[in-house]
Amino acid sequence: MSRASQRREVLRATAAERGLDAVLVTNLLNVRYLTGFTGSNGALLLRVDGRDLFGTDGRYTTQAGVQVPDVELLVDRATVPALAREAVRRGSAGPPARRIGYESHDLTVDGLHGLERVLADAAAGGTVPELASVRRAVEAQRAIKDPDEIGSLRRACAVADQALAELAAEGALRPGRTELEVGRELDARMLALGAEAPSFETIVAAGANSAIPHHRPDQTELRSGDFLKLDFGATVEGYHSDMTRTLVLGQAADWQREVYAVVAESQAAGRAALAVGADVVAVDAAARDVIVAAGHGEHFTHGLGHGVGLEIHEAPGIGQQGAGTLAAGMAVTVEPGVYLPGHGGVRIEDTLIVTDDAPELLTLTSKELLVL
Amino acid sequence: MSRASQRREVLRATAAERGLDAVLVTNLLNVRYLTGFTGSNGALLLRVDGRDLFGTDGRYTTQAGVQVPDVELLVDRATVPALAREAVRRGSAGPPARRIGYESHDLTVDGLHGLERVLADAAAGGTVPELASVRRAVEAQRAIKDPDEIGSLRRACAVADQALAELAAEGALRPGRTELEVGRELDARMLALGAEAPSFETIVAAGANSAIPHHRPDQTELRSGDFLKLDFGATVEGYHSDMTRTLVLGQAADWQREVYAVVAESQAAGRAALAVGADVVAVDAAARDVIVAAGHGEHFTHGLGHGVGLEIHEAPGIGQQGAGTLAAGMAVTVEPGVYLPGHGGVRIEDTLIVTDDAPELLTLTSKELLVL
Repeated sequence: MSRASQRREVLRATAAERGLDAVLVTNLLNVRYLTGFTGSNGALLLRVDGRDLFGTDGRYTTQAGVQVPDVELLVDRATVPALAREAVRRGSAGPPARRIGYESHDLTVDGLHGLERVLADAAAGGTVPELASVRRAVEAQRAIKDPDEIGSLRRACAVADQALAELAAEGALRPGRTELEVGRELDARMLALGAEAPSFETIVAAGANSAIPHHRPDQTELRSGDFLKLDFGATVEGYHSDMTRTLVLGQAADWQREVYAVVAESQAAGRAALAVGADVVAVDAAARDVIVAAGHGEHFTHGLGHGVGLEIHEAPGIGQQGAGTLAAGMAVTVEPGVYLPGHGGVRIEDTLIVTDDAPELLTLTSKELLVL
Repeated sequence: MSRASQRREVLRATAAERGLDAVLVTNLLNVRYLTGFTGSNGALLLRVDGRDLFGTDGRYTTQAGVQVPDVELLVDRATVPALAREAVRRGSAGPPARRIGYESHDLTVDGLHGLERVLADAAAGGTVPELASVRRAVEAQRAIKDPDEIGSLRRACAVADQALAELAAEGALRPGRTELEVGRELDARMLALGAEAPSFETIVAAGANSAIPHHRPDQTELRSGDFLKLDFGATVEGYHSDMTRTLVLGQAADWQREVYAVVAESQAAGRAALAVGADVVAVDAAARDVIVAAGHGEHFTHGLGHGVGLEIHEAPGIGQQGAGTLAAGMAVTVEPGVYLPGHGGVRIEDTLIVTDDAPELLTLTSKELLVL
């Protein structure tokens, strides 16, 4: 049984529990997760009776045959309405669906209206199936990574580690270069190492820019004595790595070493708090308390971390506003920061897997303060 | 008046015509178009009375100040509900909105329900504003490019042209290399030349793979005597270029020259048909007729082209199922193809601007059959 097929069985059990005959999965990443399909248009009609249908358009007929060999294929330009029609029509091979789950966080208002029209037409005077949101059922399932997913995440993190190591070794991170140049080289290196794409717009922030948590690289030049904050990742097999390292060019000043030590201690405390059953608010607090105790509470302006997988930000959120507990197999980031506006900032971020023992660290680049 | 501000005035006139007091723009590309904002979370409350509000979250406070200096800023994690609340509440500076437009093709079902709750709460017993879809009003506006947008498209096309020229000059397109290697080098070269990203997953299709319109590059090796089809583009300032070239490695066989000549003639006919007022179905037919006359009608399995801009595929569609006419300032692709399953295929694609005279060609790479 393929991994995607195992994932469909888990969702099928959820659907049955909720009294649904079928689930129409429209979120493209959820479709990928449940089928293996990587194209830009596809949807899955998952049925409790097992007669699933995968829908896509004519561009992807061949690709669907290769990537989704174990689900019956329906080729139609209007993928979602076509699947909905089948859910009602295919009475010959089983009873039509009476209650169909859909993803209300993904389907647009126009999409829902279209679906309602199609169902009414297809019922042709008979009972029109009821539509019921499944909420984020697939995303909840996706929060726990299976071994294939963890393998992809390991490879994605390894690409980012190696790209940074190569750039540092070649002296590419030196005064006089611009943030944009460094960002582009990091991206190009990750692609050359096999990444499909950067995980997100790579952040390169030099000097005072490092105090901006989400700085976009610009023409600012790297200067001796400045912080250099790099927040980047690689996408491999659809899975995203996420890592931040902050280093100093030339010689580190005392204030830089002090801030760095606080963030490093906070980050270690956050990693140590990653345990099965831990409340996400408590994990955030474990790291945040270190920064607050150092008098920098107001300079740590975001949550501690987030889940990572087919999306760069996904469940669970780890922060003061979060809710829920960690489970084995979750892939999360731990990324405290201290930002001193106008001066500079430090963020240190790893991607890790929660396990029954200590968390598995996937981003292996050293967290010692690197002075280049 | 900034370009973004001019665009808002056009939408404001549309909103007034439709009897709306305000439009809540949630589609992120539409928000970018109307404000200049490039972050990953933002929405615009455009009001007919001119008191616009731009909403984003705390990560983007600085960026919003730089990119959207001429619109009042609202910082809130829950951006869309916060803007909706303001539309109702800010009675002191003007009357509350009674009829609010929203983008039903973008807003999710959950998003609409959230909006309805917020409006009811904010009305606090008073009249709850009515929500009315504006459909794709902003996309319709975006179909006609202004001079800034055409400038960005020119630069995006130039990057793609140069990347391919450099790879060809360096001998990177030679037998023995894999599709994946070539694709990654093309992507890396575009990034090095200043692209923010490839426009889409670069297609490199060698030999029989060239008969698959949408082939994903794999470990297939380039071989002498084979077609090599490259479909790729660069994103610059958010705007996408799109170009396909098909070449032959080593020596071209007669059948390859014949198919190539048919597609080249078809593509020229399609370009010649791009005129203000031309029906998109007629433009498709102008190119398709050449292929049909050559006996290959069944081997041209997709539409002739599409609009291109902030999205790689946007209005207008140019195909047999299309509707509408061309207007000056539209940016479109012309990309006929002939695909012979199991043997090979040819597609030739340019990005062009429709003008009152001849269309302006933006992708300048030669369309002579290149034999490397």
